[in-house]
Amino acid sequence: MDKFITKDTPTSDDVLTVIAHLPTTSLDATVEDGFFAKLTDKDFMRVAVLLAQKGFDEGGCPIGGVIIDNATHRIVGKGHNTLVQENHPYNHGETSAIRDAGRRDFSKTTIYTTLSPCDVCATLIYMRQFNRVVVGDVTSASGNEDMLRGKGVTVDILEDAHGIELYAKYRKAKPDLDIEDWKGLAAVTKG
Amino acid sequence: MDKFITKDTPTSDDVLTVIAHLPTTSLDATVEDGFFAKLTDKDFMRVAVLLAQKGFDEGGCPIGGVIIDNATHRIVGKGHNTLVQENHPYNHGETSAIRDAGRRDFSKTTIYTTLSPCDVCATLIYMRQFNRVVVGDVTSASGNEDMLRGKGVTVDILEDAHGIELYAKYRKAKPDLDIEDWKGLAAVTKG
Repeated sequence: MDKFITKDTPTSDDVLTVIAHLPTTSLDATVEDGFFAKLTDKDFMRVAVLLAQKGFDEGGCPIGGVIIDNATHRIVGKGHNTLVQENHPYNHGETSAIRDAGRRDFSKTTIYTTLSPCDVCATLIYMRQFNRVVVGDVTSASGNEDMLRGKGVTVDILEDAHGIELYAKYRKAKPDLDIEDWKGLAAVTKG
Repeated sequence: MDKFITKDTPTSDDVLTVIAHLPTTSLDATVEDGFFAKLTDKDFMRVAVLLAQKGFDEGGCPIGGVIIDNATHRIVGKGHNTLVQENHPYNHGETSAIRDAGRRDFSKTTIYTTLSPCDVCATLIYMRQFNRVVVGDVTSASGNEDMLRGKGVTVDILEDAHGIELYAKYRKAKPDLDIEDWKGLAAVTKG
């Protein structure tokens, strides 16, 4: 059986939206390896942003993450923040993608995150020995990039205008949710 | 309808095992508030150790966590490491209990963990503004207690001999799993 998305399918936000929404375990049955092989850092960051958009549309915090195998470019994990959707205090873009990827040698992978990682996600990235992290927004937040470099992780900044705009819109609309996501509910209730 | 476990039920490992195994959301229907009110730090640590035992019996890493409301002593979250059981790279004793507790003001709670927290769990504890952490084993591992104190978290050590013995038995039987749990699969494959 042929796969719907092939190496000749043009890279567009439309097809990347399908990939963002398909469960990771369904990608094998629907996308040719050659399609992933041609994708660039910018494309994978866009998939992460489309996951952030999905989170936003669900009423949650718009932050997404994607993990690829460095050799094949196949997506091995992805996800988005589910603080609201799963009542989950720390399922951020990165923790979500890492949970989705499961037990794996992350030193052979790259993680794309739409927003500069918080302390927990940055710590998880070095403890799980990621080779490289690509950050899509250091305008809305930043801080752990140098710590990660100090731990031997390659950190690249590749800002995505769509993602930055989406985060700014969300932060303005739901400031309390943004504070809870970063600092915990105590920071909201204590003002 | 009366509840099976009442304020007069004697505190024993048998009844604490029932509490460890009941879903947190089922405790209201089965345990009187008066029973929780009389429990001590030592008892809650034992519940965490019994969760570690549950994890061990399932073939996983024996580390458990329990979170209580400081005012009522009611358990608001608990869990155990599920690296093996859920193919989950960072569902440790603490992360598991915090996931179970959901969105909550953790500054009014105490978390009991059977093992000294790893960098990720320690970071999550201060980012979610826990008031206090009680550590049940600094013999098998240690390191983040001072960092947590520096962040304003009260850290108490209350070693539980049952938990320490269980962890030593597991570490001897499954050294690779222990390394993966702390450092990631890359640390195992690279030797």
